[in-house]
Amino acid sequence: MWGQMEISQLCQIDYPIIQAGMAGSTTPELVAAVSNAGALGTIGAGYMTPDELESEIKQVQDLTAKPFAINLFVPEDIQYEMSEVRQMNALLHPYRQALGLDVPNVKSHDASDFELKIKLMIKYQVPVCSFTFGIPHQSILEQLKSANVITIGSATTVEEAQALERAGLDIVVAQGSDAGGHRGSFSDKPYETMVGTMSLVPQIVDNVSIPVVAAGGIMDGRGLIASLMLGAQGVQLGTAFLTTRESKAKDVHKKAILNCKETDTIVTDIFSGKMARGIQNAFIHEIKASGAKILPYPIQNDLTTSIRSAASQIGKTDWMHLWSGQGVRLAQDTDAKSLVESMIHKGKQCLNQFNQ
Amino acid sequence: MWGQMEISQLCQIDYPIIQAGMAGSTTPELVAAVSNAGALGTIGAGYMTPDELESEIKQVQDLTAKPFAINLFVPEDIQYEMSEVRQMNALLHPYRQALGLDVPNVKSHDASDFELKIKLMIKYQVPVCSFTFGIPHQSILEQLKSANVITIGSATTVEEAQALERAGLDIVVAQGSDAGGHRGSFSDKPYETMVGTMSLVPQIVDNVSIPVVAAGGIMDGRGLIASLMLGAQGVQLGTAFLTTRESKAKDVHKKAILNCKETDTIVTDIFSGKMARGIQNAFIHEIKASGAKILPYPIQNDLTTSIRSAASQIGKTDWMHLWSGQGVRLAQDTDAKSLVESMIHKGKQCLNQFNQ
Repeated sequence: MWGQMEISQLCQIDYPIIQAGMAGSTTPELVAAVSNAGALGTIGAGYMTPDELESEIKQVQDLTAKPFAINLFVPEDIQYEMSEVRQMNALLHPYRQALGLDVPNVKSHDASDFELKIKLMIKYQVPVCSFTFGIPHQSILEQLKSANVITIGSATTVEEAQALERAGLDIVVAQGSDAGGHRGSFSDKPYETMVGTMSLVPQIVDNVSIPVVAAGGIMDGRGLIASLMLGAQGVQLGTAFLTTRESKAKDVHKKAILNCKETDTIVTDIFSGKMARGIQNAFIHEIKASGAKILPYPIQNDLTTSIRSAASQIGKTDWMHLWSGQGVRLAQDTDAKSLVESMIHKGKQCLNQFNQ
Repeated sequence: MWGQMEISQLCQIDYPIIQAGMAGSTTPELVAAVSNAGALGTIGAGYMTPDELESEIKQVQDLTAKPFAINLFVPEDIQYEMSEVRQMNALLHPYRQALGLDVPNVKSHDASDFELKIKLMIKYQVPVCSFTFGIPHQSILEQLKSANVITIGSATTVEEAQALERAGLDIVVAQGSDAGGHRGSFSDKPYETMVGTMSLVPQIVDNVSIPVVAAGGIMDGRGLIASLMLGAQGVQLGTAFLTTRESKAKDVHKKAILNCKETDTIVTDIFSGKMARGIQNAFIHEIKASGAKILPYPIQNDLTTSIRSAASQIGKTDWMHLWSGQGVRLAQDTDAKSLVESMIHKGKQCLNQFNQ
């Protein structure tokens, strides 16, 4: 049955399971292990330079001959005032001072790196490309289509899914509010797009013709089969893969997930400027309490990156982003291959109990 | 398979489907139609006087010989200042003036009505009792157990589910954040208990021994089977039954659900003093924008009831509560029997597609 799902056929994988992009937390070992296990590994390339991505692609291709994907963030035009940057820098000063950090330069952001990454993907014949934060320009989609790259978009509402279908994406991820990490929302009202996975998946399935991948709170074989019953053709998991041994997430981050409760996460834009779900900590509460204006992505991200990075070096979870979905009690200290295999095994068990 | 689910066996029903309490929106016809179709109808008795409940029980028993349930709100001690009541009355004055309403008296609330309703349930041998907003006193649970009444509690977190199990409830409803109407939360931090149904159900299943009923965003046979795959032994649906012809919800309320989008609902305490999900409207935004302190349930409820009732008489949806879950695009203009039958039919189809 697994190979018959549309996602399996489109992506030429054995099982309709996608390891989510998780920018900053994937390793070539993780991506290859997932793909070698028959699912679809994904290089989380959102924050990578083209050179870094090229190196990652080569490493993954050394480790697997199976299909894998690259996840990219769709660039967008942003507007902000330098006075807002100065205000945020003042707010962040005590954290930087405690960690011995300088004020970072605000980088200029244009679409050139994004376009270079697309060209790399085509050059190295990476078979699948997933996008977060919106719809890539039509010229990008045409390049990928000409190169026979399968494209995946991410939606948090029915309207976003319909927009992705109209643009010509091959597959849509229906990301419910249960999901960890960045919300793929690209509507103007991110808080209104907090629709639970159980509700969102069948509503998107009913309103688009392209295959739907369920995401958000799916952690094991139960979530896999439940999603297929809702009409999804596959699932995408972030948090479940984040705690595997191959993931690049810091050990303190993995431990935080393995030890927290389903009520411990919150959605916040204070780390990156875009809404993302993670475990609550002091940094979130303090910046929020300040009432300061959060800068748009990726500026806010640029301003907080060195703080989070330095905090993670000394295991100070209070000042790190601890991305996590709501299915935390189901997270496991395991490896990627075992996770994929146990999902398939448990999924079959779920089905068989009703086949007697 | 349906009759083998633990919920079916405990409640002596053919299908593991429960029509949610929906205080204010059930009719004897709805409850009887659901039970006659082989599922479990529920009298939403949260706001009823004992006399009203007695009349409802008699009417339901005239219409069906099948098991049905009664849903009650667990009373609790509350504290508030009369100055806060005056402030809220001042805020509500323009609405009352526009509708020609007087200021209502603040009623005294004790547990005596609740205890009378328990006695009625036992007197009329109602087989199932479900509770919202907490854990009934041990003496109440003992009375019900002695009378062989099956008890159902409602949880929005793993810890609430465990507390219900410890107290001796027979069944626990796992109410995800997708759900419409009142949140069953009884922890101190209602906003932290917003865990999606897809995430919540398996985590509760793994952490209690009593059977779990999934609730929140379940609207059809897909949601039914998905919930069973997550480990639930049954499902509870509110919004899906609210739009059936037998429900007492106002036509404008039904139409609002049938015409809204999955992003149109919000969780608010401004109507009743307890958090509940409904379609956003002017009343919610205006009261929220005022910054006024919301009184605890049931005082806030007492203060807004006449406004909502009068508004509904003239079809002014801007000033009504429009309870709804997030699965709105799946809501149907149908009758209760057809809804149950179509869920079972669609559920079988979902399973059969993987049985080849």
